[in-house]
Amino acid sequence: MEDVDQEKTAEQDNIRVKTNITGLDKLLKGGLIRGRNFLVSGPCGSGKTTLAMQFLFNGVMDDKEPGLYVTLEERKDKIYADMKNFSFDLEEAEKTGIFHLIGGPVAGLSKYMESVDANVVHIMKEIEELVRTKGVKRVVVDSLNLLMFLTKEKHEQRKTIAMFCNALSELGCTVMFISETKEGTMDLSRYGVEEFVMDGVIVLYLVKQESSFVQGIAVRKMRGSDHDRKIRPYKITKKGVVVYPDEMMFSGGM
Amino acid sequence: MEDVDQEKTAEQDNIRVKTNITGLDKLLKGGLIRGRNFLVSGPCGSGKTTLAMQFLFNGVMDDKEPGLYVTLEERKDKIYADMKNFSFDLEEAEKTGIFHLIGGPVAGLSKYMESVDANVVHIMKEIEELVRTKGVKRVVVDSLNLLMFLTKEKHEQRKTIAMFCNALSELGCTVMFISETKEGTMDLSRYGVEEFVMDGVIVLYLVKQESSFVQGIAVRKMRGSDHDRKIRPYKITKKGVVVYPDEMMFSGGM
Amino acid sequence: MEDVDQEKTAEQDNIRVKTNITGLDKLLKGGLIRGRNFLVSGPCGSGKTTLAMQFLFNGVMDDKEPGLYVTLEERKDKIYADMKNFSFDLEEAEKTGIFHLIGGPVAGLSKYMESVDANVVHIMKEIEELVRTKGVKRVVVDSLNLLMFLTKEKHEQRKTIAMFCNALSELGCTVMFISETKEGTMDLSRYGVEEFVMDGVIVLYLVKQESSFVQGIAVRKMRGSDHDRKIRPYKITKKGVVVYPDEMMFSGGM
Amino acid sequence: MEDVDQEKTAEQDNIRVKTNITGLDKLLKGGLIRGRNFLVSGPCGSGKTTLAMQFLFNGVMDDKEPGLYVTLEERKDKIYADMKNFSFDLEEAEKTGIFHLIGGPVAGLSKYMESVDANVVHIMKEIEELVRTKGVKRVVVDSLNLLMFLTKEKHEQRKTIAMFCNALSELGCTVMFISETKEGTMDLSRYGVEEFVMDGVIVLYLVKQESSFVQGIAVRKMRGSDHDRKIRPYKITKKGVVVYPDEMMFSGGM
Amino acid sequence: MEDVDQEKTAEQDNIRVKTNITGLDKLLKGGLIRGRNFLVSGPCGSGKTTLAMQFLFNGVMDDKEPGLYVTLEERKDKIYADMKNFSFDLEEAEKTGIFHLIGGPVAGLSKYMESVDANVVHIMKEIEELVRTKGVKRVVVDSLNLLMFLTKEKHEQRKTIAMFCNALSELGCTVMFISETKEGTMDLSRYGVEEFVMDGVIVLYLVKQESSFVQGIAVRKMRGSDHDRKIRPYKITKKGVVVYPDEMMFSGGM
Amino acid sequence: MEDVDQEKTAEQDNIRVKTNITGLDKLLKGGLIRGRNFLVSGPCGSGKTTLAMQFLFNGVMDDKEPGLYVTLEERKDKIYADMKNFSFDLEEAEKTGIFHLIGGPVAGLSKYMESVDANVVHIMKEIEELVRTKGVKRVVVDSLNLLMFLTKEKHEQRKTIAMFCNALSELGCTVMFISETKEGTMDLSRYGVEEFVMDGVIVLYLVKQESSFVQGIAVRKMRGSDHDRKIRPYKITKKGVVVYPDEMMFSGGM
Repeated sequence: MEDVDQEKTAEQDNIRVKTNITGLDKLLKGGLIRGRNFLVSGPCGSGKTTLAMQFLFNGVMDDKEPGLYVTLEERKDKIYADMKNFSFDLEEAEKTGIFHLIGGPVAGLSKYMESVDANVVHIMKEIEELVRTKGVKRVVVDSLNLLMFLTKEKHEQRKTIAMFCNALSELGCTVMFISETKEGTMDLSRYGVEEFVMDGVIVLYLVKQESSFVQGIAVRKMRGSDHDRKIRPYKITKKGVVVYPDEMMFSGGM
Repeated sequence: MEDVDQEKTAEQDNIRVKTNITGLDKLLKGGLIRGRNFLVSGPCGSGKTTLAMQFLFNGVMDDKEPGLYVTLEERKDKIYADMKNFSFDLEEAEKTGIFHLIGGPVAGLSKYMESVDANVVHIMKEIEELVRTKGVKRVVVDSLNLLMFLTKEKHEQRKTIAMFCNALSELGCTVMFISETKEGTMDLSRYGVEEFVMDGVIVLYLVKQESSFVQGIAVRKMRGSDHDRKIRPYKITKKGVVVYPDEMMFSGGM
Repeated sequence: MEDVDQEKTAEQDNIRVKTNITGLDKLLKGGLIRGRNFLVSGPCGSGKTTLAMQFLFNGVMDDKEPGLYVTLEERKDKIYADMKNFSFDLEEAEKTGIFHLIGGPVAGLSKYMESVDANVVHIMKEIEELVRTKGVKRVVVDSLNLLMFLTKEKHEQRKTIAMFCNALSELGCTVMFISETKEGTMDLSRYGVEEFVMDGVIVLYLVKQESSFVQGIAVRKMRGSDHDRKIRPYKITKKGVVVYPDEMMFSGGM
Repeated sequence: MEDVDQEKTAEQDNIRVKTNITGLDKLLKGGLIRGRNFLVSGPCGSGKTTLAMQFLFNGVMDDKEPGLYVTLEERKDKIYADMKNFSFDLEEAEKTGIFHLIGGPVAGLSKYMESVDANVVHIMKEIEELVRTKGVKRVVVDSLNLLMFLTKEKHEQRKTIAMFCNALSELGCTVMFISETKEGTMDLSRYGVEEFVMDGVIVLYLVKQESSFVQGIAVRKMRGSDHDRKIRPYKITKKGVVVYPDEMMFSGGM
Repeated sequence: MEDVDQEKTAEQDNIRVKTNITGLDKLLKGGLIRGRNFLVSGPCGSGKTTLAMQFLFNGVMDDKEPGLYVTLEERKDKIYADMKNFSFDLEEAEKTGIFHLIGGPVAGLSKYMESVDANVVHIMKEIEELVRTKGVKRVVVDSLNLLMFLTKEKHEQRKTIAMFCNALSELGCTVMFISETKEGTMDLSRYGVEEFVMDGVIVLYLVKQESSFVQGIAVRKMRGSDHDRKIRPYKITKKGVVVYPDEMMFSGGM
Repeated sequence: MEDVDQEKTAEQDNIRVKTNITGLDKLLKGGLIRGRNFLVSGPCGSGKTTLAMQFLFNGVMDDKEPGLYVTLEERKDKIYADMKNFSFDLEEAEKTGIFHLIGGPVAGLSKYMESVDANVVHIMKEIEELVRTKGVKRVVVDSLNLLMFLTKEKHEQRKTIAMFCNALSELGCTVMFISETKEGTMDLSRYGVEEFVMDGVIVLYLVKQESSFVQGIAVRKMRGSDHDRKIRPYKITKKGVVVYPDEMMFSGGM
């Protein structure tokens, strides 16, 4: 253990990173913790990508913090078009050099195949480069599941995540990892191990009730801080995810 | 990231592709989004193929958009005969060059076996060819499950789908992928990963109640757009699938 | 796609094959469709073999249509003895050349082992021969499960079924594939894939209620045709399966 | 298909083999069918071995039919001691040459290990020998599970059972195969395939209700014969299993 | 089959081995049966080891029968210290040569690793030696699970248990095999096969009810003897396990 | 068995190690037992690490017992920062040589990867060294799950844990092993085997009730001692975990 680490620790203690997502910071007792890794998990269509993008975009707009979005499958143009619907002009932000994106396949098939095969080490080097040269402070990895799909051996998966998490927080970044949970479960993650290597876990629930779907959000874990321990309702609006921190997901009996 | 992509994006933004399936476009807040991939999933006998064929046929008849049906198992003659029952004359449409079909086994056994073994890359080349020479705009892939069956290694499956999806939307096509869900579940897909690589998910539910089967349809995800969030009843009529966008699947307690 | 196929299609459209099983044709809106494949699934002791044999025997007696029973495990003498209890004299029918059976083990152990190992291609050749030389129109394959057991690799199974189904309908035969479902489930098939490659699915349900077993039958899928969508009661009588097409399996609440 | 088989069939038709187990023959509408294979399944402690032994011993005592018990694990002396409690003197029966036992380990460890490894073909030869030289008519195989354990490859298991069943009924024997089901389930067998290759299935149920265990027996399948279709109570008495064919397992609501 | 075995059988018939555990012998209708194998299964913390040790210690104290405890993981000093809490002075008993222990790791790590790797054959030789030279009559194997863990191939596991069971009862020993069941289940064993190769099964149940855990014991199987068929409450007291043979585990509705 | 061990046993008997965690020692009837291994299991966010750290820190502060924290994934600086929130100044304790930490990754990626790959034997040597040179008495291993992830072969896992446990208690240490259970279950551990090789098990439960999460703690096993057998409520406060030993987790019906 070198003293260098101890000093960095002292600097990092208790520094909050506000998400500025309506209602969420109240659940987090002030915001995320700088330099830590957070899991954002939820089923299909629950708004994980939107919430994570808000975290990045609000950092850019409110705090002038450079953001980085790492995707392993999505096309850049699709993402930019989708986010415009929430009035997030990522194209504009990218031009000013305060927003960055790694990984979306662009040209042809062969190029795409190559980018999918890019291994974790290669992706980390790209991230490291952007953090050093552009001062990136907030990172979103979308999604953790693909990262684990790329890891063939089951016993290698946790090692891969742990390695990735540590590498990112050593760079001082505050990171959101997106994880897709299985429909109809209350799981925290897909493999049941992701939540244990993270410093915090934010879960989006989607529960079918008769012909409707009820949505709720909860902070299930947050190392080094107290946090709200209820499931709160949220909505996906034109301005993104909006959390109601003083209401309960289920008002009556379930 | 090349500028070419950014321009294409600008053009594609918000363009809606009407399915013209009674009631469905209301759930989709106007229709599908051009150039995107949609999962149409449901259990056996829920009408997935009929719904997807309506999407293609309505494009041909109402919007003069060339359509392409990709099948990996079915015989062309069976499909054409089945669709005639819904008054879709695909044979006629094919003659005018505005409808196309790839893949159904025709002659003998050996030929069939070959066509089943045809790998994904080969199928994509055929599609690419038809899009370029015939101007195909709407594509149906029936079904995603077989595509995944052909992929031996589990960790290769998601990569295969992601690659296939991206290749198709880079060609500018609006695509419906059909996925068969397991009887008696509320699953969104067979492998639990298909829904995450798609831009939208339309689910057909079939719930046994005493001696009857109750049917419902829901849009569970739609990147870059708001959408209806209830389960609505639908029927399979002589004119195909008909959705009731203002009613609820379960009217009473379940 | 060759024109030859298109012509054959024209001929086949909408031709119904009556099962002449009391009550069943009403559920099928007139009968099976010529040249198509149907799954007959159900748990142990639900009468699958009896129902399929009625389909063959009624074809022989009522419509003079040559029938073929393909078995991979059963002894011919056992089957003939069992069917005599339902007054189906298969031995007599076989003598007149209008009924055929492939596959039952006859002589000694070694011979049996050989017949079990007979691969799918070999069986198909035998069927093809009988169809060509004897004009077989109706075929029963008992059972699909063994066929899949013989297929070692999981991803080969669906291919095997698809190949087998297509080969049979190209010969113009109307086929019933028997599938054994797991006790206590409402599954449509054993592997959960068989129903998707078939043109129609007929399910026999057997539900334990206190000290009794309640039986019901439903048509769960029928490509190219409307069909009944309820679960109807049935009985196994001295004359075979009898369906009650106007009653409900569960009369009260369940 | 040779004519020899057809003749044998004629002889075997409808010949009933009475179990003479109190109440059971009523459920079987007269008894088992000669030359057929029956599965006797049930959970731990439900009396499977006792019931099967009654079948053999009653054959010896009431009908002078030579019986054979095939065990792959049990010691002969244990079995004989246990059966004496039900007043079955197998030792005496063995001396008169009308009862036989194959397989129990006798001397030392090495000898035992050998006998466990004895493959199916070897066991069948021993059985064949006893049937030919001693005129054995009734056989019990205890248990089918071990037979399947000895079969390494999953897809080989059904083949093994099918082969074994056919070999035995070709010898004209009426056979009971014992199968152990999993505690707390209503399964018909351990692997879910055994019931499909058998001609009949007799199930022993054991249901926990509060602090007691309720026992019931049902004939769930019987090819070539009608049979009772309810779950009837039974008891294990000093004279073995006693079935109450006119009562119901659950008298009240469950 | 040699006559020697038949004679041994005669001697062993019906000889009861009293456990002298309060209330248990009543459930067993007099005690265990000499020379037989019994499974003692239950979840974590249910008192399996305590019950088995009482069986050994009571044999030593009440009947002067030499006992042997076989452990594959535990340290001797821990076991001795734990048992002192129940006033079982195993150290004292060992000194008088009437109690023996095989297997606890003693010195260093390397030595331990060796003892874990010790194969089943080796352990059996040690037991055989002690039975012959010390006249051991009662044996406890703690636990069966580790034995099965040491067996790599799944289809070898049952063979291993069967072999071990037979070897021990051929030595004339009455044996308790301890098996750990999974929390929250009503399983009889961990692998679902152990109960079938045993002569008797004693189960300890632990059911969570609101904020408490309810305990019950039942004899679920006992070859060659009648036995109690209810679940009876028990407690772990300063004198070990105490069974209440006339009460019911659940007094009210559950 | 050497006499040395017997003597060590005598010394160790009944020596209690107070956790000094409010309320917990009452459940433990005085505290943990010196030289034994305890499992502390619970789902994500239940406070396992906090509870274990209290055990170490209270040992340091109240009893001047040197403590050791073994982590396989976490960064030292993160752990120290998190614990400061509970007023545990581990940095200060480390400087005085009474607190030690093994394993957190420090410098760069390559170094980290190395430390993750460090095998169990290597870790044990480090621990042994610290126990001998620094007199460490209390050890926390966080977490057992990673240890098992590093063990490729399933049948090696239990052996690894057993070996690790024994090695530690031979050194005289009192150890807490942290195990992460799956969300939404009442499991005692992740693999279902960890609890059986431990001397005691402390479980943290987290049950979702409508929009809230209810927390409870229970001692489920404690070899060689009586213990509380209810589930008691607990809270995570500014001073760490606080147990309410006289209340019930669920006050009403559940």
